[in-house]
Amino acid sequence: MKTVSENESFGGVQGVYSHASEACGCEMTFAVYLPPQAQQGKVPVLWYLSGLTCTHENAMVKAGAQAWASREGIALIFPDTSPRGEGIANDAAYDLGQGAGFYVDATEAPWAPHFNMWQYVVHELPALIFDNFPLDPARQGITGHSMGGHGALTIGMTHPEIYRSLSAISPIANPGASDWGRKQFTAYLGADEAKWQAHDATVLMRERGYPGTVMIDQGAKDQFLDLLRPEALAEAAAARRQPLNFRLIAGADHSYFYVAGVMEEHIRFHASRLRP
Amino acid sequence: MKTVSENESFGGVQGVYSHASEACGCEMTFAVYLPPQAQQGKVPVLWYLSGLTCTHENAMVKAGAQAWASREGIALIFPDTSPRGEGIANDAAYDLGQGAGFYVDATEAPWAPHFNMWQYVVHELPALIFDNFPLDPARQGITGHSMGGHGALTIGMTHPEIYRSLSAISPIANPGASDWGRKQFTAYLGADEAKWQAHDATVLMRERGYPGTVMIDQGAKDQFLDLLRPEALAEAAAARRQPLNFRLIAGADHSYFYVAGVMEEHIRFHASRLRP
Repeated sequence: MKTVSENESFGGVQGVYSHASEACGCEMTFAVYLPPQAQQGKVPVLWYLSGLTCTHENAMVKAGAQAWASREGIALIFPDTSPRGEGIANDAAYDLGQGAGFYVDATEAPWAPHFNMWQYVVHELPALIFDNFPLDPARQGITGHSMGGHGALTIGMTHPEIYRSLSAISPIANPGASDWGRKQFTAYLGADEAKWQAHDATVLMRERGYPGTVMIDQGAKDQFLDLLRPEALAEAAAARRQPLNFRLIAGADHSYFYVAGVMEEHIRFHASRLRP
Repeated sequence: MKTVSENESFGGVQGVYSHASEACGCEMTFAVYLPPQAQQGKVPVLWYLSGLTCTHENAMVKAGAQAWASREGIALIFPDTSPRGEGIANDAAYDLGQGAGFYVDATEAPWAPHFNMWQYVVHELPALIFDNFPLDPARQGITGHSMGGHGALTIGMTHPEIYRSLSAISPIANPGASDWGRKQFTAYLGADEAKWQAHDATVLMRERGYPGTVMIDQGAKDQFLDLLRPEALAEAAAARRQPLNFRLIAGADHSYFYVAGVMEEHIRFHASRLRP
């Protein structure tokens, strides 16, 4: 693991690191915010998965998250959104290939050798960070924005034994019925839609749910609402009687100006559920 | 208007009054909580509509609402849920007739002469209370529980020019598709389902929505969830992109033990939207 940068932030440290990833077959960059409480012992962890076109950097620099993480004593992990680099498959479109890993393990050419973001986020990166930082593996939560909200919901509902708190900000909520999903699942997982089900938050909500309250925020003026399909997830959650905090926020769009506005509540939500 | 009782409560006055109602053709009882701020001038108003089997008394004595209304400087109005008395139509079932007015104006026999709770709540009782108490008609909000949540949502979405804030607690959310609704609409409004549409919150949400954030709470362990159908309203609201705070609260049932637990947030929600 290499240290790319470390900066003091709200009494803690905002670091950026890289390592040779086995799952992705390339050098991967990620960011860790350690709150000041980490100087005294292991702190809980909030995974933040980012959206299409994002890197580890977007939420780190635009979400104002460090202030609240410092106050609540919780670490933040910002993974990248895909493998990257020369010699790694890509697509001219912004929503496929590099920057658009969709948190799945690809089975199809040309993606399969590198696009294994599920394996990377759920297994490989955790092993690395728990080895290298004072973090408590028994107290992990997960959230994310847009494609990262999709990742958080699908990963969190699949592994509630790992992720003890779950929220999402403007998630791609029903990718199997959206152009943000069908195209990418076809490319990464193949045309058999049965293989997509494990990666559709609405399907998982209907079939599994989550053993705790799920918090979901969505801008009511989001320019991508027709692609995000929050109505499908809201219906599935309510029909399941899933404990839920679901907000459609007046005037809010899909940008980090809005994400920064709900960040305090998401971090407090997770921190309150991850206390010892 | 007759004064039935007045009691000091959190620095204000909890009163119970009765009057001869023209809309209902009988003596009707209602309760008003005036916060201490009403001694200095007109205060905003929150209408609280109660559920099946309730009177003006249930929320007044069991919701703990006066504490928060006093703090926020907002008056509470608790109407009865139907006409009552000898010589007024009734039914042996708890969910039809007296105590079950459903906030509609009945057109069918034997209900039509007295069961006009829409007219009573939206027109007659407001005229009376604004004549008799220091209340600001330009600052009214509406909420309610169960059948009263249905009333609040349908009245609020129909008259947003009157009700500037809107919430509901465990509302009957889609009565046209529920045994809590179909039976009563058939009795009060007749078999033509087209006449029910104006009294179904899910239909109104799909067709009209509301020009402000709507707050809805629902217990995830509510024993009546299959009758309340929150999933239909949640889907309709999200599909419309209606600004919304929708919670399914872990462990909560349909009782006033749970209602009392969310009362502070509902009163604060309304008070914050009704400031001058």
